[in-house]
Amino acid sequence: MGNNKQKALVNFKKAQSLISKIIKMIEGNEYCINIMQQNLAVLGLLRSAHQMLMENHLNTCFKKAMETRNEKRKQEMIKEMLTVTKLFNK
Amino acid sequence: MGNNKQKALVNFKKAQSLISKIIKMIEGNEYCINIMQQNLAVLGLLRSAHQMLMENHLNTCFKKAMETRNEKRKQEMIKEMLTVTKLFNK
Amino acid sequence: MGNNKQKALVNFKKAQSLISKIIKMIEGNEYCINIMQQNLAVLGLLRSAHQMLMENHLNTCFKKAMETRNEKRKQEMIKEMLTVTKLFNK
Amino acid sequence: MGNNKQKALVNFKKAQSLISKIIKMIEGNEYCINIMQQNLAVLGLLRSAHQMLMENHLNTCFKKAMETRNEKRKQEMIKEMLTVTKLFNK
Repeated sequence: MGNNKQKALVNFKKAQSLISKIIKMIEGNEYCINIMQQNLAVLGLLRSAHQMLMENHLNTCFKKAMETRNEKRKQEMIKEMLTVTKLFNK
Repeated sequence: MGNNKQKALVNFKKAQSLISKIIKMIEGNEYCINIMQQNLAVLGLLRSAHQMLMENHLNTCFKKAMETRNEKRKQEMIKEMLTVTKLFNK
Repeated sequence: MGNNKQKALVNFKKAQSLISKIIKMIEGNEYCINIMQQNLAVLGLLRSAHQMLMENHLNTCFKKAMETRNEKRKQEMIKEMLTVTKLFNK
Repeated sequence: MGNNKQKALVNFKKAQSLISKIIKMIEGNEYCINIMQQNLAVLGLLRSAHQMLMENHLNTCFKKAMETRNEKRKQEMIKEMLTVTKLFNK
């Protein structure tokens, strides 16, 4: 597994543990602002993970595909890339 | 528990299960774009949850505090509100 | 005019001048990445301006309305607040 | 000029005219929420423009560079791409 994929894995595991904490906070009817701040921490972890996966993708599959002469494949890769950047901004 | 807090709880539980899936996908070395798309789904769930918690907060604690004559408390509530909106945009 | 509204005005004027620059860059067929970086600068200015206006609003109109006993007005103010936070995350 | 660059230009021109309107609204001391809603419209236009420029870049300069054997150039292009996606999420 690439270095960036491994770093993303760490982020997802941290996010998982924080979400378990958040679920307990809601069930314990804790103060909304405190819950929201934990949620913002999770959002930060997942955004970084997205960026790490993007970096990994650009340096591996995407790069390889772009070096071939398969125009159809290259168009598909570009479309995919636009999908994950477009959705991310929403 | 308020209706919005309960809806937020549902979102956090869905997010938790999706993150478990994502962790397996990374460990199984699946295609980055597929992982990223799952991650975007989690981000969407957490953003909605944030909005639900915000709505709950505005209609309960925040509203109550703003109706008092405690100026210091009101200033604190406004500051808190700015923190969770500011961070969210990052 | 409040201090925050004035700071927001400065940001909008900077954004205006940067957008004029961007339009010239596109017409001069400049490198996309350079144009995108200028655009990111404008997005940063507008996001800060949004936050300044939010702060101004919370401390003036919103605060005043929340202190009254007009429940209908208060509900409208909360709805409005949710609209500008919700849209901003998109 | 590519089709996407032209569409981006239209967005920047609309954004420019909306920002002029916003500046007048602030100078006329209009209601903050109304100003914020106009600002959100501008942010939407600029985000779409960013996406259009990204699509143009991927299909032109980026694609061309990735097809060469110049490893150093390819690494630079990937780094640039990460910069404009990373910043955009902030």
